[in-house]
Amino acid sequence: MTRTIRLLLAYDGTAFRGWARQRDPGIRTVEGELSDVLSGVLREPSKLTVAGRTDAGVHARGQVASLRTDRDVAAWKLRDAINGGLAPEIVCREAADAPEGFDARFSASAREYRYRISTGPFPDPFTGRFVWHRPGHLDVPAMREAARRVVGERDFTSFCRHPGAERSTVRDLQRLSVAPAGDRVELRFRANAFLHQMVRALTGTLALVGDGKLAPEDVARLLAARDRAGTGNLAPANGLTLERVIYGRRSHV
Amino acid sequence: MTRTIRLLLAYDGTAFRGWARQRDPGIRTVEGELSDVLSGVLREPSKLTVAGRTDAGVHARGQVASLRTDRDVAAWKLRDAINGGLAPEIVCREAADAPEGFDARFSASAREYRYRISTGPFPDPFTGRFVWHRPGHLDVPAMREAARRVVGERDFTSFCRHPGAERSTVRDLQRLSVAPAGDRVELRFRANAFLHQMVRALTGTLALVGDGKLAPEDVARLLAARDRAGTGNLAPANGLTLERVIYGRRSHV
Repeated sequence: MTRTIRLLLAYDGTAFRGWARQRDPGIRTVEGELSDVLSGVLREPSKLTVAGRTDAGVHARGQVASLRTDRDVAAWKLRDAINGGLAPEIVCREAADAPEGFDARFSASAREYRYRISTGPFPDPFTGRFVWHRPGHLDVPAMREAARRVVGERDFTSFCRHPGAERSTVRDLQRLSVAPAGDRVELRFRANAFLHQMVRALTGTLALVGDGKLAPEDVARLLAARDRAGTGNLAPANGLTLERVIYGRRSHV
Repeated sequence: MTRTIRLLLAYDGTAFRGWARQRDPGIRTVEGELSDVLSGVLREPSKLTVAGRTDAGVHARGQVASLRTDRDVAAWKLRDAINGGLAPEIVCREAADAPEGFDARFSASAREYRYRISTGPFPDPFTGRFVWHRPGHLDVPAMREAARRVVGERDFTSFCRHPGAERSTVRDLQRLSVAPAGDRVELRFRANAFLHQMVRALTGTLALVGDGKLAPEDVARLLAARDRAGTGNLAPANGLTLERVIYGRRSHV
């Protein structure tokens, strides 16, 4: 009988050209590394479905992927094979049989990303891989005001790298919080789904608001323009982490 | 006039074969990278003195180094040159002219190291470079009891990799605390100075106490034996960080 297995994954995206497997086998991708390990254990080619197709350099703490197989292999063996071969760069936190019909991508009701900015004078070797170092004060209340102007179900063409590739550019941005934490500013995004590079384009634009180079109403104007104007302010990939994926009312963290 | 410049440094030691420059220029060391940058700015060979000669894979948050030069270059220019060339792997947090006679090694009155152990079931891609992942419960009270037995001015031959190379194997271990923090256990060591691999040998031995494989009195016995018996339990380098160096009553963090 065909089973569906759900994997809960964390990874340091620094050395990967993103999630999606590439044709050139010399290019390291998260999906490529995982598929190779899983195919070895299952002794069949394995095809993964994923909740968030993270870009090159983007990290994940609570990524969810699923695969279908006829093989009778205990799910924990897949978890242990992944951790044995790929940890700590890629870690499988959980592997379990999923209910019939589960699909990591299409069953997901929402995704949460976190973007970390460090505003201190010097980079930190201990967190530098996961934080955008951007020295100088950020005006958090102004960033929050701008965030309020983009939350909601809206057409995010202005903050999407390749809007042509998407069937619809409307997404429901349910939450965008801006929180200072020591010499860091952390942005949390929650939406039903995200367009390509949407979080990084919004973060880069909000950082300009934090600098005083844009006003909150400028961000509302950028959004209304629907012309990709916001994508010129792309924040770097390394500050971004997919924190969790929500299914129905349950989240898999 | 010859000046002495003090550098406050942080680094991710993962990719370095330790602090000390090696003869083979193909071997990456922290001292080697720093000396190259400094020699370029000062246009003379620069020789660094350091408070803690960290081993391969060991990190630092508050390392202190000093150099002497006749050149009239503002200290902040050295800091910026280091950060421009080597951050975020190596970061200079501060560079300043030091009082006459200052020497990063010989003026230091104490060093503080922290050793981080993660006891959770899976490694964490975000902290894995800086933490020893060692799944399973650790008995913290027993580890504390063992720690109490080794604190003080003692002959640490049993916990030194190359005791023959040291003039004296007596060190004053002023503090050894064991603190649980979530699914981590953190050990903090403070001593006037440390023998080669002393922190890692003590940590590995205390971890065996945490497992119940050694009793606290066994550790006292190992110490008294003065025969390097403790060095068989070496904890891995990546969990270890030089946190700060204390000069007189002042610390440079």
